[in-house]
Amino acid sequence: MVDSWSVKDKAKDLGLLKKKDPNSAIIELADSPLPITGGKSPEKPKITIIDYDEQHYHEAEVKDVQECFRFKNQPTVTWINIDGLHQMDVLEKLGSCYGIHPLVLEDILTDQRPKIEDYDDYIFIVLKMLYYDEGSENKPDDEDDDGLGDTNLDMDQVSMILGPNFIISFKEKEVDVFNPLRDRLRMAKGKIRKQGADYLAYSMIDAIVDHYFLIMEKLGDRFEDLEDVVVSDPEPGILPTIYNLKRDMLFLRKSVWPLREAISKMQRTDSPLVSEATKIYLRDVYDHTIQVIENIETFRDMSASLLETYLSSLSNKLNEVIKLLTIISTIFIPLTFLAGLYGMNFRFMPELESPWGYPAVLILMLLVVVVMMIYFRKKEWV
Amino acid sequence: MVDSWSVKDKAKDLGLLKKKDPNSAIIELADSPLPITGGKSPEKPKITIIDYDEQHYHEAEVKDVQECFRFKNQPTVTWINIDGLHQMDVLEKLGSCYGIHPLVLEDILTDQRPKIEDYDDYIFIVLKMLYYDEGSENKPDDEDDDGLGDTNLDMDQVSMILGPNFIISFKEKEVDVFNPLRDRLRMAKGKIRKQGADYLAYSMIDAIVDHYFLIMEKLGDRFEDLEDVVVSDPEPGILPTIYNLKRDMLFLRKSVWPLREAISKMQRTDSPLVSEATKIYLRDVYDHTIQVIENIETFRDMSASLLETYLSSLSNKLNEVIKLLTIISTIFIPLTFLAGLYGMNFRFMPELESPWGYPAVLILMLLVVVVMMIYFRKKEWV
Amino acid sequence: MVDSWSVKDKAKDLGLLKKKDPNSAIIELADSPLPITGGKSPEKPKITIIDYDEQHYHEAEVKDVQECFRFKNQPTVTWINIDGLHQMDVLEKLGSCYGIHPLVLEDILTDQRPKIEDYDDYIFIVLKMLYYDEGSENKPDDEDDDGLGDTNLDMDQVSMILGPNFIISFKEKEVDVFNPLRDRLRMAKGKIRKQGADYLAYSMIDAIVDHYFLIMEKLGDRFEDLEDVVVSDPEPGILPTIYNLKRDMLFLRKSVWPLREAISKMQRTDSPLVSEATKIYLRDVYDHTIQVIENIETFRDMSASLLETYLSSLSNKLNEVIKLLTIISTIFIPLTFLAGLYGMNFRFMPELESPWGYPAVLILMLLVVVVMMIYFRKKEWV
Amino acid sequence: MVDSWSVKDKAKDLGLLKKKDPNSAIIELADSPLPITGGKSPEKPKITIIDYDEQHYHEAEVKDVQECFRFKNQPTVTWINIDGLHQMDVLEKLGSCYGIHPLVLEDILTDQRPKIEDYDDYIFIVLKMLYYDEGSENKPDDEDDDGLGDTNLDMDQVSMILGPNFIISFKEKEVDVFNPLRDRLRMAKGKIRKQGADYLAYSMIDAIVDHYFLIMEKLGDRFEDLEDVVVSDPEPGILPTIYNLKRDMLFLRKSVWPLREAISKMQRTDSPLVSEATKIYLRDVYDHTIQVIENIETFRDMSASLLETYLSSLSNKLNEVIKLLTIISTIFIPLTFLAGLYGMNFRFMPELESPWGYPAVLILMLLVVVVMMIYFRKKEWV
Amino acid sequence: MVDSWSVKDKAKDLGLLKKKDPNSAIIELADSPLPITGGKSPEKPKITIIDYDEQHYHEAEVKDVQECFRFKNQPTVTWINIDGLHQMDVLEKLGSCYGIHPLVLEDILTDQRPKIEDYDDYIFIVLKMLYYDEGSENKPDDEDDDGLGDTNLDMDQVSMILGPNFIISFKEKEVDVFNPLRDRLRMAKGKIRKQGADYLAYSMIDAIVDHYFLIMEKLGDRFEDLEDVVVSDPEPGILPTIYNLKRDMLFLRKSVWPLREAISKMQRTDSPLVSEATKIYLRDVYDHTIQVIENIETFRDMSASLLETYLSSLSNKLNEVIKLLTIISTIFIPLTFLAGLYGMNFRFMPELESPWGYPAVLILMLLVVVVMMIYFRKKEWV
Repeated sequence: MVDSWSVKDKAKDLGLLKKKDPNSAIIELADSPLPITGGKSPEKPKITIIDYDEQHYHEAEVKDVQECFRFKNQPTVTWINIDGLHQMDVLEKLGSCYGIHPLVLEDILTDQRPKIEDYDDYIFIVLKMLYYDEGSENKPDDEDDDGLGDTNLDMDQVSMILGPNFIISFKEKEVDVFNPLRDRLRMAKGKIRKQGADYLAYSMIDAIVDHYFLIMEKLGDRFEDLEDVVVSDPEPGILPTIYNLKRDMLFLRKSVWPLREAISKMQRTDSPLVSEATKIYLRDVYDHTIQVIENIETFRDMSASLLETYLSSLSNKLNEVIKLLTIISTIFIPLTFLAGLYGMNFRFMPELESPWGYPAVLILMLLVVVVMMIYFRKKEWV
Repeated sequence: MVDSWSVKDKAKDLGLLKKKDPNSAIIELADSPLPITGGKSPEKPKITIIDYDEQHYHEAEVKDVQECFRFKNQPTVTWINIDGLHQMDVLEKLGSCYGIHPLVLEDILTDQRPKIEDYDDYIFIVLKMLYYDEGSENKPDDEDDDGLGDTNLDMDQVSMILGPNFIISFKEKEVDVFNPLRDRLRMAKGKIRKQGADYLAYSMIDAIVDHYFLIMEKLGDRFEDLEDVVVSDPEPGILPTIYNLKRDMLFLRKSVWPLREAISKMQRTDSPLVSEATKIYLRDVYDHTIQVIENIETFRDMSASLLETYLSSLSNKLNEVIKLLTIISTIFIPLTFLAGLYGMNFRFMPELESPWGYPAVLILMLLVVVVMMIYFRKKEWV
Repeated sequence: MVDSWSVKDKAKDLGLLKKKDPNSAIIELADSPLPITGGKSPEKPKITIIDYDEQHYHEAEVKDVQECFRFKNQPTVTWINIDGLHQMDVLEKLGSCYGIHPLVLEDILTDQRPKIEDYDDYIFIVLKMLYYDEGSENKPDDEDDDGLGDTNLDMDQVSMILGPNFIISFKEKEVDVFNPLRDRLRMAKGKIRKQGADYLAYSMIDAIVDHYFLIMEKLGDRFEDLEDVVVSDPEPGILPTIYNLKRDMLFLRKSVWPLREAISKMQRTDSPLVSEATKIYLRDVYDHTIQVIENIETFRDMSASLLETYLSSLSNKLNEVIKLLTIISTIFIPLTFLAGLYGMNFRFMPELESPWGYPAVLILMLLVVVVMMIYFRKKEWV
Repeated sequence: MVDSWSVKDKAKDLGLLKKKDPNSAIIELADSPLPITGGKSPEKPKITIIDYDEQHYHEAEVKDVQECFRFKNQPTVTWINIDGLHQMDVLEKLGSCYGIHPLVLEDILTDQRPKIEDYDDYIFIVLKMLYYDEGSENKPDDEDDDGLGDTNLDMDQVSMILGPNFIISFKEKEVDVFNPLRDRLRMAKGKIRKQGADYLAYSMIDAIVDHYFLIMEKLGDRFEDLEDVVVSDPEPGILPTIYNLKRDMLFLRKSVWPLREAISKMQRTDSPLVSEATKIYLRDVYDHTIQVIENIETFRDMSASLLETYLSSLSNKLNEVIKLLTIISTIFIPLTFLAGLYGMNFRFMPELESPWGYPAVLILMLLVVVVMMIYFRKKEWV
Repeated sequence: MVDSWSVKDKAKDLGLLKKKDPNSAIIELADSPLPITGGKSPEKPKITIIDYDEQHYHEAEVKDVQECFRFKNQPTVTWINIDGLHQMDVLEKLGSCYGIHPLVLEDILTDQRPKIEDYDDYIFIVLKMLYYDEGSENKPDDEDDDGLGDTNLDMDQVSMILGPNFIISFKEKEVDVFNPLRDRLRMAKGKIRKQGADYLAYSMIDAIVDHYFLIMEKLGDRFEDLEDVVVSDPEPGILPTIYNLKRDMLFLRKSVWPLREAISKMQRTDSPLVSEATKIYLRDVYDHTIQVIENIETFRDMSASLLETYLSSLSNKLNEVIKLLTIISTIFIPLTFLAGLYGMNFRFMPELESPWGYPAVLILMLLVVVVMMIYFRKKEWV
């Protein structure tokens, strides 16, 4: 149905490589002239291959993607993982060997929503891996390519192609949440070595979704810190922090919401590539996704409350300041007037001549202060 | 379909035990090295067994879970309740005896959304038991593990496995809403002893949902107290209280919303484990859940109104303060100027020499005061 | 399917009688020891029976509910109405005579959402009758049992059991919207005497829904009054009024929304108890319900606007006050300084000696005033 | 199925005539004693009849509705239009002649949501005609019967009964959007004379929906005017205008939203009264309705923004005023203090004796002013 | 089913040409007398024709639309593009040649929502092309015809008629996003020349949707600029900018949301005009549309946050200003009072005579300042 036509051509053809989600950190291929080799992307893609069944286990890092193709027709499960995808020809070779639709190859290179697409011979899965960069509150290189300014959350697109006995996964960065998975494969722990490629796919999705809980926790901590400050000491410096938190929430939400639909679709698929036993595990991941989404929505509601509370807190503080000003003013302004009154230079001011004038005025002033204090006390201002 | 593989291995394997909902108070097994015995969880799990039919009733607290297994193939209804689930081996034994899927065992140990899952041979039910801790406004031990800070609401996850003639229930805490149920079983009151395990399951769900109404009432009382303060005397100290109330609402909501879907699912199930007669009772519980949800939504709307009203109330108060300042200032500032004017030391100021100067100025000042007072009265400020 | 088991037992059994909606004014049976007779509910329930067909009409107030049972197997339509339901035994007798499910009897006694449930032999209908208590802005007896404080809206739960040729209706209060209906029955006006029990049920529902329009109108009037005050004269006292109005809206909404679903269900039922001809009339009631809901939603949106407008109005007022303060201050503070300047006691101040000093300063002061006034005029402050 | 029973009786019977939507300007029949003739509605209803086919065209204003009935069984299309429906007997005669269900007759007399109901023999259509009353910002006669106070939008309910070869339309007011339609009928322009009654119904609906676009435009203009004022010069007088605009939006929305559903229903009907060719045209009207709805929603969002922007604008203005006050105060208060200091009458104040005292103080004062100005400039306040 | 009747007549007939979306920049035909030639629209429509198959390629600009008709029955794909559609007769000729429904021709001339309609023989597609006018922040000619004032976003309606082997596209402006597409056709790059008209339609839709990403990026940049200013320096001038941005978002949203539904409909169509192979590509466009929509929603949420943050920022600034005022006042007002006190002219004031009076007062004043400073420091105001 789909001819084996060149990805590079297609990429140039449709102009799709130029397209980018403003919130993504995916490299933008179209900025450099095709083929994308040399200067701008110095690191070569790192291709690792793991081939296993219950008895055998083979793991290797290969230079050329063609080394992987010999595993294609074996009954063992093959996992090809490609980090840092800069070379178009690697994708093209994989595409023609495994019969991947050009649109899939294109989707791997460009930023996509989390989704699961069934192409009969294989299932194409796109997920978002999220990282929480504790230190980098202001990443300077982020500012020019996304519309959301600096964020603590970083993202990597993980694409997977799930075939009958193979998985090909693509990531941009080497930071790896799949390492525990590899360990389990190496050490033949659990049931993972006994199961097919679909169980491996489940394990990978599960690893990614589990990582979201970590992000949730970090955000929860940030919330807690903010709450204390907002309520007790609403300093202006906290405003950008709240704003950034809200933005991070939106960012997170955009990454996780489509995931729910995608996993639900995979769980309900009638493709022979996903076994019934694995679907039970997918239901579990689905539940976790819902849990993540509910937490995000809760955080969202709380961040809205936080800003409102901050505003109220500011108003409280303003009230306090103005109360002080009012107390000082209403006490001293009448006193100052009295002092000014008897500072007038009229020739005929009988009070001035009286020996009791000064003490009388002092007593009068004291009276004013006392009356005012009583008034403020009644108002519960002091 | 699912092999009888070790829960502990699986738990380590998938890394799932580390995952936690940031809003849950469930103990986190993964923080301590597996198996989770000894130091960190000193109390042994408390296992009670109740076995009954219309004529017979047997109740016991057992040391070893294996004592329960002899009831398995009898026609009587068996209710095994396990409080404080710290020992993995108990779960494993139960799992292998009753043929429970590893994912279910894992779900019992980790925090889950309320849900009902049909595993053909049994139905797995997860509910959230809510407690209202009147005294503990600031629980220090809560602060580090949830993202929401201190809350008045406490939660316990209740998991149930409903089989053809048995129920196995798991709770963390001993605080027990099932005691009235046990009394009814013991005294053979009502129809409960005549019915099967599904009716017992219904009774347990009903007991939990009924408890929510109590929480609603407590929250309603807190609202009432807040309303009076917010409208009449918007002191700053009330702000954290409103914020906490809103957060509690979100927390509550997250626990109850999924319940609706779960009960609806159980009510519509075609599993032979739930009889038609019991489904009528489940419809009743479903209606109660809807009622709880509607109350929560009403409270949510009201808490939003509350914060807005608080802000308006603050503005009112600010207006009042500033009005006072303005009245004092606008009356005395002109007077002070007049006094200052005749306090000048110019040699030639004819007014100063006149015997009528002083009284004239006093009268002028009085006039200013009167005019101002009339102005303020017209503005309805005084 | 359901045994004829004692309601009292069941009530104690399930503990359901203790449950209450925090927003309801339904009496709470469980507060008094069962059976609920004597002291706390002095008035006996008032049981009226109307039995009619096109030719005959019989109306009576009976002491004992058993007097009604003789109409049971006659072809005439029988309407048994029970006001002030305090005696359990009445319910039990009715239940066993007409074969009512225990849950229905329990629902009649406790607070329910508006709903319609089909029990094959009869249809169980729960509606909320709303009253608008003009005078009682602060009902003291409301404060302790609902979470919403004082409200102008009062509620009564109307339960109906629609059988093949009978209707049994239960209300708490004697205030009666069914009186016009009774008149029509007595005088054989309209088609009501020619139709079956389902048309009577429709007429009762219609009477209740029509009453909502009256409530809408009252709320509309309150809105109008508020609008004028909010925009023109935002006095602080209006804040609780707005808040209460919003709460009333939430309360109203909770009572009416489920009604829509319920009537829709009744309209689409395939029960032989509701004839096709009556369903056309139910569609009409359904349309009215939608109209009520749309009005409520409009009111809700408007009450949100109202609070926002109130806040803006407050800000306007604050601006005005502060403007006055600023005008007075910026005019007189420089003048006072000038006066103070020439009130200094330096020995060598040539201006003081000059005969033109005083007039010059006065002119200077006048200039300051003029310049300030021009400035304020340009700013359109005065 | 439905007997030909008297509308008047029914109206009294069900008390439905008293019911009214608080937001409608429909006359309320129930305020006057039935039958509704004479005093309160002096103008007689105006009945016009248009009867046409491709060749013939007959138009007349009739005194008695019975004159219309002779067209009933002819193959020509008959359009009976009744303006100002005050006489019950007209409706009754029409109802019995054309076999209209009593509920339809009642719906024509009372305020309804836009809806389309299929009664097999005819289709009953209710629409809302909207008028924009440019001049009447404060209509005094509106205040007592709707809950929303004064509005620029006026409404008329248009009811249509679409039969196989006839349309009967009912309006309250004579203001007529159907005049262009009549012209086209008279002059046999377009395809309208060649088509059946369903195409005429489409044309009438289309005329009404098209009129909404005019309302949209008027509202758009009002928005534009408001925007300029709100952002540049947020005077208090604009607040009621914004509030009214929001209310008009809610009003408009309530009239248009149900229309969408209604037209969609008519478009999908399988009634033989609506031909397939006409359904294509109805899809077009449906699209227009969606367009209107989207515009309303956009306006709603904008009006919310408008109020928020107004609040921000007020805050800006307040800031500006307070800045001025602060500048004047912080400059002159220290100066006044200095002046006051050397106005003290201590016998031993060496500065007072020095010939450089006065110039030194003046220089000091100048310094204070300069420092303050530099500070304010740095803060970008001046 | 639909007769070949004159578009001009129809347009006049239904009065539809007068209708306009208040947010559109489409020329309004109805303002000028029909036929719309000469003065008001000086540029003639520009008709270009491209006819191709895998081997042949023909491109021409034609004067008369009839020159295109000779390609109609050839197996090659024909793309007729018409820019600046001012002449009705061109449309009419096309309509009668290709058998286009009058409503379609009318829709091309008037403003429509993005939609896809299946007319069996052809598919009618309406899309919105968006432009971002960097320079024109205040386009004066925009003010009078749309309800939303000035906007940076400009729109062009692109209508397409997709037949078995032809596409007819209509645009208002010559600004062309289809140029790269034409280049690919000319140079036979990619698979486009090998595919049918449906693939060409896909390519055109794709080009338009891709252009949205560019708009997203521009908006993202504007957001970034705003964020910095809002948080750090909330000057009043930024308020209209935020307001305009929100309005642009609403505008954008209205253009893109319907697109999703439209493309989804085209993707699921069972029309033989769209091949299965092309549907896979449409799924890709659909995904992009979802991505655009999600970005818009994110931007919308952020723009709401922005306004709230701006308000908070203003409050912060106000607090700062008032704090300064309060500090200055509370320090100097007591001092001024003291100075005034000893400026009184009482004859008997022992302090005045003492040589230590003056230094004592100075020290007292210093004390006041120190105490105040300590107080403010404790409050963290300075």
